[in-house]
Amino acid sequence: MGNENSCFSKEDGKTRETMAEATKALQGRISLAHGAGGKSSAELLDLIFSKIELKNTPGGIGIDCAEDSALINLVDGSKTIAFTTDTYTVKPLFFPGADIGWLSVCGTVNDLSVMGAKPVAVSCSLVIEEGFPVQDLEKIIGSMNRASKTAGVPIVCGDTKVMEKGSIDGLIINTAGIGEVADLVRNSGAKVGDTVIVSGPVGDHGIALLSVREGLSFETLLESDAAPLNTLMQSIPLPHAAKDPTRGGLNSALNEIALKSSIPSSHALGRGIEIRIDEDKIPVRKEVKAACAMLGLDPLSVACEGRVVVCTDKPTETLEAMKSHPLGKGAQAIGRVTEKTGKSKAGVFLRTAEGGTRVLRMQDEVIPRIC
Amino acid sequence: MGNENSCFSKEDGKTRETMAEATKALQGRISLAHGAGGKSSAELLDLIFSKIELKNTPGGIGIDCAEDSALINLVDGSKTIAFTTDTYTVKPLFFPGADIGWLSVCGTVNDLSVMGAKPVAVSCSLVIEEGFPVQDLEKIIGSMNRASKTAGVPIVCGDTKVMEKGSIDGLIINTAGIGEVADLVRNSGAKVGDTVIVSGPVGDHGIALLSVREGLSFETLLESDAAPLNTLMQSIPLPHAAKDPTRGGLNSALNEIALKSSIPSSHALGRGIEIRIDEDKIPVRKEVKAACAMLGLDPLSVACEGRVVVCTDKPTETLEAMKSHPLGKGAQAIGRVTEKTGKSKAGVFLRTAEGGTRVLRMQDEVIPRIC
Repeated sequence: MGNENSCFSKEDGKTRETMAEATKALQGRISLAHGAGGKSSAELLDLIFSKIELKNTPGGIGIDCAEDSALINLVDGSKTIAFTTDTYTVKPLFFPGADIGWLSVCGTVNDLSVMGAKPVAVSCSLVIEEGFPVQDLEKIIGSMNRASKTAGVPIVCGDTKVMEKGSIDGLIINTAGIGEVADLVRNSGAKVGDTVIVSGPVGDHGIALLSVREGLSFETLLESDAAPLNTLMQSIPLPHAAKDPTRGGLNSALNEIALKSSIPSSHALGRGIEIRIDEDKIPVRKEVKAACAMLGLDPLSVACEGRVVVCTDKPTETLEAMKSHPLGKGAQAIGRVTEKTGKSKAGVFLRTAEGGTRVLRMQDEVIPRIC
Repeated sequence: MGNENSCFSKEDGKTRETMAEATKALQGRISLAHGAGGKSSAELLDLIFSKIELKNTPGGIGIDCAEDSALINLVDGSKTIAFTTDTYTVKPLFFPGADIGWLSVCGTVNDLSVMGAKPVAVSCSLVIEEGFPVQDLEKIIGSMNRASKTAGVPIVCGDTKVMEKGSIDGLIINTAGIGEVADLVRNSGAKVGDTVIVSGPVGDHGIALLSVREGLSFETLLESDAAPLNTLMQSIPLPHAAKDPTRGGLNSALNEIALKSSIPSSHALGRGIEIRIDEDKIPVRKEVKAACAMLGLDPLSVACEGRVVVCTDKPTETLEAMKSHPLGKGAQAIGRVTEKTGKSKAGVFLRTAEGGTRVLRMQDEVIPRIC
């Protein structure tokens, strides 16, 4: 089986390290940062990609592309299927606005949706700690059911495992998902001149979680934004690139789009792209700003679970469509895609509220178990 | 979305309990038995099935059928896709003959294969404990790679999460898989007159694991049988029913086939089926027998991870094809499918070596974390 669509082949060596370097970068032991969605996570992925030889189906998009879903061309070429997986280890299991069950269905529906796929089915694999209250399990399965009905996507298969008390912290859920692709969207597709649009305020999910963990309280209840984005995505004009800013937040999502859209195979001409966003225009709730100030976090690096950021050449129609959808009422154009300038390797630039410009670097912040 | 192919609808009330009964049966807390593949596992599944409303795609086979894979008919009806998921929590991570990485790819390839599907792609979702040695991770990913190459099935997408030290016991892996279905095989398809064939000795995997846990040693090394069954399944004549005897072993596999093949919707006439097997004919290695005697286990209830049991009306060709495949050299015809007799609810009868006949009941044995 070939690897025709390899995303990080040796030719793109600058974007990914070799296996030996990746191992070295991991320094012998896995740390929480390797799961936090930033730089260390990318190093861990390098190691995994380097070990797997059959990374995709012929002509498909495989694991080394690190897209939100893989793409599989069926044997007769008649259909392209999107396929994705995600394990949810979020803590606490119940948090303002949602729980791990709701999150686990939404997250996988969203990974399919941002690729332009119509989600068709999800799976549900539970790992449960011995002694876990059946009542809590019922609530969580009930939330999975509500998310499945809200998205209109059935839960068609599953698995349950029980681990001895102390071997797993409560419960974790893996959901995988399958979608049918008509019009493909890739996170490597951003083009010079595109407008960058985010569908709503960022960071709500991460801060809603952290507020429970840290015992913060707000004047108004801050709820997780977790929601299935399939109908929103289907209502907007086909974007050039899309991503849901989950682990690592808007920061990681934009850096990934900028990096991937600058890989030689992704564009015919030019030196790649940069993304330039305006701090003033990025929607962030005041509770999120306040909590981030208190906790020393950057709201742009805090996870959302019901937002999407798109790069599009149809900004007016996209904004209009988003704003007329319940999940896109807070949509904002936050910046533009420009041609790469100078020698800087940086991909994302933030024009600050004070009028300066700074590089928005992918962080290695440890906010573990937010998804 | 409809539920046209519901497997355990209210009409089949005898085979599945109502939600309230299922909750009651769970008695407030999840126990290890709920994950062991026996009676309690079935009760836990009842609870989950009862909570999920969208259980399948239109015309497909969904979660309530508890087949090894779900079946999804694509929108234009041109293709049927098999979809399955499994989380591997096996302990220890490394065991004679294999490790969790090898097992996780084989298991999912097998769940597709026993449905008559050609596996097309698998996913790989890792949950890793903080502090886990990178070297062990490399070995495990290396084993996933070898299994992927052996089966000829690429690993196309993945996910990695890290949990705090003490929150997860080492590492667990979820793999989901997609296959293309040409000729469907269901575990509800067994027919009166079929011969029951198992592809090799049973219980090797479970006893190889337990031997490490319990410190047993054998004269010869007993290795796990874990292996990808896709090429074996593709080499035999299409059976009426097939199942890989994993959790709960041959016992659970045969009881499930007997139960499902007796559901009214599965057959037009008659009172259902029984499966009658001969203890003398069931291949069990002497090391497995000895270890089971020592541990008080029934070899027929111990897990395999590279065996398949089929019900077929072409026993000669099936045995010949199996024996000419490296994974089927130890294949044996072990019994027959007969018409249900008398009033007994039992589905599987064992003719013992001593000449008696006893009911082989699904056990509720706790051999946790063998897969």
